[in-house]
Amino acid sequence: MSGYVRQLAERAREAGPAIATLDGPARRRLIERMATHLRRDSVDIIAANIEDMTRGRDAGLSDAVLDRLRLDDTRVSAIADALDEVAAQADPLGEVTRRETRPNGVVVERVRIPLGLIAMIYEARPNVTAEAAALCLKAGNTVLLRGGSEARASNAAIAGCLHAALREEGLPEAAVSLVSDPAREHVLELLQLADLIDLAIPRGGEGLIRFVAEHARVPVIKHYKGVCHLYVDRAADLDTALDLLVDGKASRPGVCNALETLLVHRDVAGEFLPRAMQRLLARGVEVRGCERTRAIAPQAKVADEVDYAAEYLDLILAVRVVDDLAQALAHIARHGSDHTEVIVTADAAAAEAFVRGTRSAAVMVNASSRFNDGGQLGLGAEIGISTTRLHAYGPMGAESLTIERFVVRGEGQVRHPESRERLG
Amino acid sequence: MSGYVRQLAERAREAGPAIATLDGPARRRLIERMATHLRRDSVDIIAANIEDMTRGRDAGLSDAVLDRLRLDDTRVSAIADALDEVAAQADPLGEVTRRETRPNGVVVERVRIPLGLIAMIYEARPNVTAEAAALCLKAGNTVLLRGGSEARASNAAIAGCLHAALREEGLPEAAVSLVSDPAREHVLELLQLADLIDLAIPRGGEGLIRFVAEHARVPVIKHYKGVCHLYVDRAADLDTALDLLVDGKASRPGVCNALETLLVHRDVAGEFLPRAMQRLLARGVEVRGCERTRAIAPQAKVADEVDYAAEYLDLILAVRVVDDLAQALAHIARHGSDHTEVIVTADAAAAEAFVRGTRSAAVMVNASSRFNDGGQLGLGAEIGISTTRLHAYGPMGAESLTIERFVVRGEGQVRHPESRERLG
Repeated sequence: MSGYVRQLAERAREAGPAIATLDGPARRRLIERMATHLRRDSVDIIAANIEDMTRGRDAGLSDAVLDRLRLDDTRVSAIADALDEVAAQADPLGEVTRRETRPNGVVVERVRIPLGLIAMIYEARPNVTAEAAALCLKAGNTVLLRGGSEARASNAAIAGCLHAALREEGLPEAAVSLVSDPAREHVLELLQLADLIDLAIPRGGEGLIRFVAEHARVPVIKHYKGVCHLYVDRAADLDTALDLLVDGKASRPGVCNALETLLVHRDVAGEFLPRAMQRLLARGVEVRGCERTRAIAPQAKVADEVDYAAEYLDLILAVRVVDDLAQALAHIARHGSDHTEVIVTADAAAAEAFVRGTRSAAVMVNASSRFNDGGQLGLGAEIGISTTRLHAYGPMGAESLTIERFVVRGEGQVRHPESRERLG
Repeated sequence: MSGYVRQLAERAREAGPAIATLDGPARRRLIERMATHLRRDSVDIIAANIEDMTRGRDAGLSDAVLDRLRLDDTRVSAIADALDEVAAQADPLGEVTRRETRPNGVVVERVRIPLGLIAMIYEARPNVTAEAAALCLKAGNTVLLRGGSEARASNAAIAGCLHAALREEGLPEAAVSLVSDPAREHVLELLQLADLIDLAIPRGGEGLIRFVAEHARVPVIKHYKGVCHLYVDRAADLDTALDLLVDGKASRPGVCNALETLLVHRDVAGEFLPRAMQRLLARGVEVRGCERTRAIAPQAKVADEVDYAAEYLDLILAVRVVDDLAQALAHIARHGSDHTEVIVTADAAAAEAFVRGTRSAAVMVNASSRFNDGGQLGLGAEIGISTTRLHAYGPMGAESLTIERFVVRGEGQVRHPESRERLG
């Protein structure tokens, strides 16, 4: 361990009180100013990005990674817009979430305060540098950013804009600290800093998240894969089911709230599956099914156990015909990833049984899996979708980067009356 | 790794749905039945405890540990009463904490569900066996209990009562699983089971909590030491300050919400400290002070940096005279443990500056540190007082053993309108 990341984290932590004590309007102004700098320096950011893209192509990065890495005018502008949106959100801090006067007269309030120092560990998406920083600052936190080395020039250019805004507001640049040295060992060092870092959030592929989970001494909220299921119940409206299937699988297959598996009640499989195949094939989706599926829809390839656990992130769908809702729930319990599950049914009792029988972060009744997203669910911008059943479960907005503490106001109340005895 | 704990954890996890799907009245009845069995089998529990006490005395356990270990009629009865209290609490599950209809018409609800499988790791207090199990079950969780080997006979007897209640309700005994093999390596094995255990809660001394934090692959909420401060402001009512000082330090010095350090504004030190010394000495408290303290109160011994970081859990108090509120806050930031801080002041601005300037789980204005307790703050029984700034901060009641998930109800809404295109 070089101590390089520890020093960065110490400075970021020291910057904590300067950010935590800003009022809501000041935090809003700071983030708006960051957006302004991003728009103003767009040309420099894109120039830095071209440097990353060139190095990436030479290094043989895949097209998918290069696409995530790439910035252009539209994308920089979208990042600035996202920051303005975060700036405009309701202030997540200071809200009194509960207030109670106890029998002894003390008033107990619960009040949101920042978590402290948050570490973001992510891959080649330079937009995360700005968006994660904005969300952390919105909630009064400071942030330590460790992006993928593929994006290092882009991240440095973006961080330059964020630092300019901090300086102009008279705030320490260390409030947004970038681990700019690309050595992998720095991630390991970061994950040991339990005395400095209150929360680490990894965002990226399964490999990164596993690495973080295995090595972390700091608290981690995972944003893990989405093996999302659509269950078409016996009582489903089949037109609705078709719409939700196409929206969930084909509208944007590379995201975590896309569908990966279709479960169909045997009573409707004969009518539904041929129609589903037609719609899916028209959208270029490859279907892999169980035996019963293939008896109805012979175009389907064979699905095995690996398919039912797969997060394809691609135009591929696993399909299984089930005997009943209980078998659908058992399938989800075995293969699911606690992300998003959907039921299509007109039967209220079946819907409630499905809601109760799943433990995923989001369960949808007659609505698309693609709504499991901070913006769609009304949280505003999100820092990710947690699949950790602790602190936050599902989309994490700015409020998820705070914690409730207790503020108790009294007039000299003691717990033990004998403490009051007066002497002398 | 023997696999012994993994097998226990797998069975406890398999019992999860049976508990999670119980309604509130059924969970209440289960816990009341546990209390009934504890009362009925009190003689057997005490006999088992005598066995533990005898072995403990032979092994040379300290009087303090033996006192925590000891059970008698009164203590068993108090445990049963605590269970009845947990049973009678409001149901923490199923509550819709927020509901919003989005512009597209989907209704987004946030609903509390159980965390899943909770592991309790604790020392020689057999009451934790029953109380932690009751709180976990109240919130629909199953629990894996690993108590100190000193209490193994007592814990087995108590677990026998809990299992009898589960059996009578037709529920799997594995919902409350006891790691009965005393080998220390089992704690290590438990801490690796990230695929089975949703949360580990260590309760006990600093050594245990450090061990858990260092070795855990599972999420941990720490219940760490309380280095609690009382700050007597320039604008303090000194009679109030004396009452809160005595209540905080002397009413029960061995608990985590007891005061450890007194900070006094220099403008009132000359009047306050002699009166404080008189009250403290009358209660048998040893005082260790800074130079300015000792100039005013020569009976005080010398305090050093170690004293200011100490959780004495004893009739000892560290004292420091400070120049102003800012110096008090700096002292707390440096030496505090994020547990409980108290200000005594009649100055509302000073009170607010103190509240904002501390980041501890509980901050008290003119009220005793001893109120940082689940029962006192209105949460009912607590599983501990979290000093981890994640998920729960401060006293953790049954509600802290749940997580909010998203339930979305629609009428076929899709995210991308083109998903609706009808074919054929």
